[in-house]
Amino acid sequence: MASPPLPRRAVVREVGLRDGLQSIQKVLPTARKIEWVRLAYEAGQREIEVGSFVPPRLLPQLADTAQVLAYAKTLPGLAASVLVPNLQGAQRAIEHGAALMILPLSASHAHSLANLRKTPDEVVAEMGRIRAARDAAGSRTLIEGGVGTAFGCTLQGEVAESEVLRLLQALLDAGADRVSLADTVGYANPSAVSRLFEKALRVAGDRFCCGHFHDTRGLALANIYASLQLGVARFDASLAGIGGCPHAPGASGNASTEDAAFMLAAMDVQTGIALDKLLALRAEVVGWLEGEPTHGSVWRAGLPKTFAQPLAA
Amino acid sequence: MASPPLPRRAVVREVGLRDGLQSIQKVLPTARKIEWVRLAYEAGQREIEVGSFVPPRLLPQLADTAQVLAYAKTLPGLAASVLVPNLQGAQRAIEHGAALMILPLSASHAHSLANLRKTPDEVVAEMGRIRAARDAAGSRTLIEGGVGTAFGCTLQGEVAESEVLRLLQALLDAGADRVSLADTVGYANPSAVSRLFEKALRVAGDRFCCGHFHDTRGLALANIYASLQLGVARFDASLAGIGGCPHAPGASGNASTEDAAFMLAAMDVQTGIALDKLLALRAEVVGWLEGEPTHGSVWRAGLPKTFAQPLAA
Repeated sequence: MASPPLPRRAVVREVGLRDGLQSIQKVLPTARKIEWVRLAYEAGQREIEVGSFVPPRLLPQLADTAQVLAYAKTLPGLAASVLVPNLQGAQRAIEHGAALMILPLSASHAHSLANLRKTPDEVVAEMGRIRAARDAAGSRTLIEGGVGTAFGCTLQGEVAESEVLRLLQALLDAGADRVSLADTVGYANPSAVSRLFEKALRVAGDRFCCGHFHDTRGLALANIYASLQLGVARFDASLAGIGGCPHAPGASGNASTEDAAFMLAAMDVQTGIALDKLLALRAEVVGWLEGEPTHGSVWRAGLPKTFAQPLAA
Repeated sequence: MASPPLPRRAVVREVGLRDGLQSIQKVLPTARKIEWVRLAYEAGQREIEVGSFVPPRLLPQLADTAQVLAYAKTLPGLAASVLVPNLQGAQRAIEHGAALMILPLSASHAHSLANLRKTPDEVVAEMGRIRAARDAAGSRTLIEGGVGTAFGCTLQGEVAESEVLRLLQALLDAGADRVSLADTVGYANPSAVSRLFEKALRVAGDRFCCGHFHDTRGLALANIYASLQLGVARFDASLAGIGGCPHAPGASGNASTEDAAFMLAAMDVQTGIALDKLLALRAEVVGWLEGEPTHGSVWRAGLPKTFAQPLAA
């Protein structure tokens, strides 16, 4: 049986400035982050996660998130998002007028305690407080609940599907505007994605908004394809695949933005991204990150002779 | 819509000893090739392309194909195949008792002339002569017609789908026992695979036997997944992804055997391959190829904690 029709459009949400840079030792100067946002916008990207409102002592790489966000807000039609680990971070996101804030939750109890120092249900409770704060402020900042380690965990191993689905529902009940799923440690495969995402769509409907895949075992693009077949049409990705996995030194990190954008365009799924501009930006950013591990395939192979370059947005 | 059920079993056919080694300058000693075949067999692989019956002056790396084939034939249940460029090569494959010989044909007229010095229809005619020779010899060597550049070509660009399908049919009419399709230059994407393979199955039915993908732009595993959804259950792959593409220096080559075997096992598609043994073999072969570019992800990241190791065949 041939594949069902894919969505006509999809969004590649850039997370390199957050998920990418946070796992890199090097601190990129604010001016370069702003240049990255500017060039990504010029290449047609319209959703960019510009940083994280965490205490600067935890992630000095992202200490300038407010400044990068302020610049991103000057670009018409750009939805700039930030990660917020808790209510304090959310209050900063509201104050600085982010279009979207993403609260991460780990479906793995062990991972949640180790990384967030909270149980998953404590994070759900925090979602309730964040929603109340957003509404009290009369803010229009959207709230996304991102459920990570959705396909398993390096600490506890298996993560029950029922627990992932329960937490998606709990986040929505607690006030999330939308939810997403992340394969934080690169354990997913296309069959598992197909199974879990189908159920997630049953729980959350069109409030299920995004798939976040790591390419740790080379399956990020296959997982994106499996998601697309279900109608999911937003994917996190990181330019040059930066990000890495702390549990697998040297392994690939996030799906590479340019490879994901290439695959989508090659399949006639419109992203609004001009591949030539994105590849030029990649070269620029890789230069800035000199010595850090980068990933991806299309930058080296080039675009196929048969590839019809879509126009930028 | 969730994915249709995948095949319960699939074959990862090792082509590293042919497609891989032929694009590498280094000549691997015969004893090491034999050791590779032995360890691949021990890891559970049961289909291995051991070389090519081309004139040694063209491919000195494969000059010992008859010796490697003779060893492979001593392993019970191992189907050892060889590539044959023409009738002369086929006569050697018959004489040496290969289980299978594969005649490559390029659907791109330009690529066919540049690489094989024949038009596609001249190759079809050669298939007829090979079939006659096989039958006259009373040989049981199977004949596969492999149609390459099936998704486009670095020389001529577009390759018409109708031409690919016409050539599949022509090869069958000329006497091929079975046919396969190859994305020789890494131009395929999962949608294109889904479309073309569905039509190929309509032309050839269960005589359509294999997908051969290159990972030039990172899509080999996604393409394998798209094929599996149609019920195709045999894939060429090369240990450590060796192979490369002469038109894209440094780019990835064939799908990596170990990553493909991992993806299949993770999706509960049985391959009979013991991943731990295969990864140990990979380390061995990479040592032999010191300095040559190698690829793949799983060797670095390791197997997920949740991964249930299947038993070897």
